[in-house]
Amino acid sequence: MDPDVLAKAFVEHYYTTFDNNRGGLATLYQEGSMLTFEGQKIQGSPNIVAKLTSLPFQQCHHSITTVDCQPSGANGGMLVFVSGNLQLAGEQHALKFSQMFHLMPTPQGSYYVMNDIFRLNYA
Amino acid sequence: MDPDVLAKAFVEHYYTTFDNNRGGLATLYQEGSMLTFEGQKIQGSPNIVAKLTSLPFQQCHHSITTVDCQPSGANGGMLVFVSGNLQLAGEQHALKFSQMFHLMPTPQGSYYVMNDIFRLNYA
Repeated sequence: MDPDVLAKAFVEHYYTTFDNNRGGLATLYQEGSMLTFEGQKIQGSPNIVAKLTSLPFQQCHHSITTVDCQPSGANGGMLVFVSGNLQLAGEQHALKFSQMFHLMPTPQGSYYVMNDIFRLNYA
Repeated sequence: MDPDVLAKAFVEHYYTTFDNNRGGLATLYQEGSMLTFEGQKIQGSPNIVAKLTSLPFQQCHHSITTVDCQPSGANGGMLVFVSGNLQLAGEQHALKFSQMFHLMPTPQGSYYVMNDIFRLNYA
C-alpha cells in the first residue's frame, strides 16, 4: 500500500477514535509504546490510555491540516508527522497542535504506535 | 549520555549551523537521508542541502521552544521533536515551526539525520 495513503488512513482512524471513544485507543499501543505528552513521558498502553482518558476535557474534535510520512528504516516502521487544530467543547478558539507517530507493523498485518510525541503550539 | 542532553545538543548544533553556515549541514545528512520540507520530499545529502541553501531568505534565526526525544527502537536511533520560532531578516513577525528528526548513530560515535520532516505552523 502507498505509505502516504496508509499514513492518512491511520491518522483518520486515530483522531476519530480519540474524539469518539478515547479508551478505544488502547488497541493502537503496546507494552513498549512511548508517549511524550506536552513533555510528560509515559510508557505502555495502559498508562498511555489512562493519561489520554484523564485529560481535563471531555469532548473534543481534531481537524487535520497536514500529514507527512517517511519510512523510518526500522523493520518496516513508518514515521507520521501531523499538524492540525484541536477544538475543545465550550472553548471559542481551537488550539494548534503537532504530533508525530512511529508506527511499527504487527504480525497480523496492521500497525501499532511505537512512539508518540504530542505538543500544543499555543497559537 | 543522557538522551535528552544529547537531543538538546544536536538541536542546538543543527540550528546554529542552519543560521550561520547553512552549507555546513551537509555533514549531518547521508545518501539515504530523507527530508520532507513543507510537503516536498527530497532524498540524499546533496539534494537536501541544495534545497536548504536555496530557500528564499538569506538570514534567519531559529529560537527553540521545546525539544522532546524518544529512542526509536531502530539500532540506537533517536527521535527528536522540536517546536520553535523562525525569524527571517526584515520580517516583523516570527513564524512558528515544528520539525522532527530521526537520528542514527555513525560508526564514529556521532549521529546523522536519517529522517527530517519540517512544517511551518502559520501562526
